[in-house]
Amino acid sequence: MGAKKKLKKKIKALKAQLKTAAQPAQGNGVLVSPLAPVDFPDLPAIKGVRLATTAAGVRYSGRTDVMLAVLDPGSVVAGTFTRSATRSASVLDAQTKIAGDGTEGAAILVNSGNANAFTGAAGVASVNALSAAVSQKLGLPATRVFTSSTGVIGEPLPHDRIIAVLDELTVGLSGAALQDAARAIMTTDTFPKGSSTTFEIAGETVTISGIAKGSGMVAPDMATMLVYIFTDAKIARPALQSMLSQQTDRSFNCITVDSDTSTSDMVLLGATGQADMPVIDDATSEAARAFSDALGKVMLDLAHQVVRDGEGATKFVEVSVSGARSDADARKVAMAIANSPLVKTAIAGEDPNWGRIVMAVGKSGAEADRDRLSIRFGPHLVAFQGQVAPSYAEQVGAEYMRQQELVIGVDLRLGVGAATVWTCDLTHRYIDINTDYRS
Amino acid sequence: MGAKKKLKKKIKALKAQLKTAAQPAQGNGVLVSPLAPVDFPDLPAIKGVRLATTAAGVRYSGRTDVMLAVLDPGSVVAGTFTRSATRSASVLDAQTKIAGDGTEGAAILVNSGNANAFTGAAGVASVNALSAAVSQKLGLPATRVFTSSTGVIGEPLPHDRIIAVLDELTVGLSGAALQDAARAIMTTDTFPKGSSTTFEIAGETVTISGIAKGSGMVAPDMATMLVYIFTDAKIARPALQSMLSQQTDRSFNCITVDSDTSTSDMVLLGATGQADMPVIDDATSEAARAFSDALGKVMLDLAHQVVRDGEGATKFVEVSVSGARSDADARKVAMAIANSPLVKTAIAGEDPNWGRIVMAVGKSGAEADRDRLSIRFGPHLVAFQGQVAPSYAEQVGAEYMRQQELVIGVDLRLGVGAATVWTCDLTHRYIDINTDYRS
Repeated sequence: MGAKKKLKKKIKALKAQLKTAAQPAQGNGVLVSPLAPVDFPDLPAIKGVRLATTAAGVRYSGRTDVMLAVLDPGSVVAGTFTRSATRSASVLDAQTKIAGDGTEGAAILVNSGNANAFTGAAGVASVNALSAAVSQKLGLPATRVFTSSTGVIGEPLPHDRIIAVLDELTVGLSGAALQDAARAIMTTDTFPKGSSTTFEIAGETVTISGIAKGSGMVAPDMATMLVYIFTDAKIARPALQSMLSQQTDRSFNCITVDSDTSTSDMVLLGATGQADMPVIDDATSEAARAFSDALGKVMLDLAHQVVRDGEGATKFVEVSVSGARSDADARKVAMAIANSPLVKTAIAGEDPNWGRIVMAVGKSGAEADRDRLSIRFGPHLVAFQGQVAPSYAEQVGAEYMRQQELVIGVDLRLGVGAATVWTCDLTHRYIDINTDYRS
Repeated sequence: MGAKKKLKKKIKALKAQLKTAAQPAQGNGVLVSPLAPVDFPDLPAIKGVRLATTAAGVRYSGRTDVMLAVLDPGSVVAGTFTRSATRSASVLDAQTKIAGDGTEGAAILVNSGNANAFTGAAGVASVNALSAAVSQKLGLPATRVFTSSTGVIGEPLPHDRIIAVLDELTVGLSGAALQDAARAIMTTDTFPKGSSTTFEIAGETVTISGIAKGSGMVAPDMATMLVYIFTDAKIARPALQSMLSQQTDRSFNCITVDSDTSTSDMVLLGATGQADMPVIDDATSEAARAFSDALGKVMLDLAHQVVRDGEGATKFVEVSVSGARSDADARKVAMAIANSPLVKTAIAGEDPNWGRIVMAVGKSGAEADRDRLSIRFGPHLVAFQGQVAPSYAEQVGAEYMRQQELVIGVDLRLGVGAATVWTCDLTHRYIDINTDYRS
C-alpha cells in the first residue's frame, strides 16, 4: 500500500476513534482499556484494617492521589520488592523495615504522581519526613510506617503537600475504603484493580482483599506495580513472607507489558490476625497451603488485571511453553516471546505470524531444536516438528487472532520444563502514551 | 490532554504527513528514512568479484529480488552468523561450508522476499537445489556456493523461480553491480546500504567494498541482516576469519532496532587476493592491523546505516556507557537503555526523560550504585551522583532532544568498563510496519 493511501486510511481510522472518544471515559479523559473487567469487584473489609484517601495535589489535580492504610496492633507485614539496582528511597526503606517483627501495628502511606526515585539525599529525606509525620500522628514507631511513591522519576517529592493532608486522612479512616484506595494509587492506569477471596481455615472464614496499580514499565522483578493485600488470617511473619515470595514468583513475576522494570515497586501483605483461628507458623502445613492457594488466586487475578491495563493493550495473551530442558529454559522462551516487539505488533495486527514466534524461541538463549518445535494458537496446531502443520490453514489462524484473549503454546519437545507468562499486544496507543512529554 | 483533543491533534499531524508523502519516495511507495545518507556512496569494484541481479518474483513484483556474486579462483571466504537456536537452513549450510579452505573460487546467491526459515526438510532441499544449480552453472564445487534468504519466515521458498533466472544472472555478471546488489537484497529497507574504503598495504592500494540489508528484527547476535563485503586483499582464511569475528563484535553486534534477532542472518567476507601485496597470515601483524581497522570502518558504517533505516526511526541514538565494573557490565547497561521501549518512545517524543534511563540502568542486571550514577545528553550533564545536576535546566535537555542525532552518556563510576551501542527511537511507523498483515 502506498504511503499516501496508508495515511488516508489512518486518518479515517482516527476519525472513527474520535467518535468513540465521546463515549463515557475515566475522570481524566482516558478511555478505559477494552480488556478491563466489567465491574470493580466487591472487596470485603478486613478486620483490623482501615483506609482513607484524599487529594494532596502532588502532581495531578481533580483526583485523589494519596492513600493511608492503618493496621491494628498485632498485625504482621511481609513484602517483595523490585530487584532494580536503582531502587527508590521508599523501596530501600521498606526493605529494611519489613524484616522487623514489630507487632505494634503498621501504616502504609502511598502517593501517586511522583515516584521519589533518583532524587538522592532529598528522596531519603522525604521518606523520613513522611514516616516521622505518620508515626507521630498515629503513635506508631517510625519503623512500622511504610511509604510508596509512584509516578515521575527524578523529580523531588513535594512531601509537605502529603503531610498537610495527614489530619484529614486519619479522620477519614474506614474499613470500607478499599476501592477508593485502588483509585488513589493509579497513574496511567485506566481502571482501578482489586481482588478478593474468602475461604475457611479450621472452620473459620478468612478473607484476603487486595488492590494494585500498574499499566506500563511492567516486567518481572516487580515492574511499575504497587500492590497492597490485607488479610485477617493469623500467620507468623516468616511463614507469611515465605508464602508471599512464592506466590509473587508465580504471579507478578510472570507478567510483562513492555519488558521495562520500575525502580519503585513493591507488594506489601499485611495480616491482622483478627480471624479466630490457630496461628499458622509452618508454611508447609495444611492451613498454610490453603492460605497460600487463596493468596495465589488473588495475586494472579491482580497480576492479570495489570496486564489487561497494559498501556495501549487490546489483546490479553497467555504464552505457555512446555517440553523445555528446564523450567528456567521454558521461562526464557516464554519471556522472549512475550517481550518481542515483532510478536506483539503481529498480535496487534491480528496476523497469525508464527514465524516471529520461531524467531523469539531462537533468540531466547534457551536450548531449542528447530525440527522438534511445535506451535499452537489456542486449540489450533500451527507448526509441528519444525514446519507448518499439515492440518493448518492460514485462515483458521487469522480467524483465531481476532479474539481478544489469546493463547500461544510452544512445545520444545526436549524435556519436562514448563512456564506460563502473560502479556498484551503493542499498539499505537502505547506509543501515544509514552511519547507524550513526561508521562 | 483529553482523548478527543489528542485525536484531533493526531489527525492534524497526519494530514501534514500526507502532504510530505507526495514527495519523492522509493519505487515501492515507501518514504525513505529521514536518517538515510544523502547519496549511495561510490563503491569501487573489487578485482576478482563480479555481480548480477534480476527480478525472480520470489514474492515481490516490480523489483529485483535476487543477486549473484562470483569470486574468482584463489578467493577465500570468512563468515559470522546469527546465534539464534532456530537458524535457517541456509545459515546452517553456510556455517558448514565456511570452515572449508577451498580456493576454487566461490559464489554467493541471495534472495529477498522469503527467508526459507522454519521450513523443515523442504528448506534444506531448497538450499541444496540452489547450491547444485549454481555449482553446475559456474563449474564450482557445491561446497563453495553460499546462499542466503531474507523475508517471511515459515513459508516454503519457491526456489525454482530463482533457478529459472540463473542463466540471466550469469550472463549479466559485472564488477560494477554493487549498488544494484544492495537494492536486490532489500526487504523493509527504505534505502540501499553500501560502504567502501581504500588504503595502502606495502605501498599497494587495497579496497574493501560492502553492502548490507536490514531495518527490523535487528539486535546483537546478528539480527535481520545480510552483509556481503569484498576485498582484493591477500589474506589467509584463518586470519580473515579472526579479523571478521572481532570487527563483527564491534559493529553489527553493537546495534539494536527492536531487540529481536533473526533466524537468517550472516556476514560474509570474501578476499580475492588480487591486490599485489604479501599475504597476511598473522592477524596480529602490522598489515593485518591496517586491514582490520579499514574493515572495521566499513562494517561500522554499514551497521550505522542499518540503524538509520530502523523501522520507523526518526532519531539516531548513540548510547555510551563508562565506569562499569567490566566491559560486559557496560554492554548490559547500554543494551538495556537501547532496547527499552520506554526510553525509545521518550526519544521519539523528544522528551528528555532521564528517569527512564535510570530505570533501564536499574533493570540491566549490571552492578550499579544509584548515588554514583551520572547521565548526560550530548554535552549536557543531566544527572550527577544520583540526582539532577545543579547546572541542568530542563529546557536545555528539551532543546537537545530535538536533534536528529543524539548521544546518551552514562557514567557508573564503579570501574573502567565501557561500551558503546547504537539504536533508534520507537515510533508509530514501527507499529504501522509491523502490524501490517505478514510483513
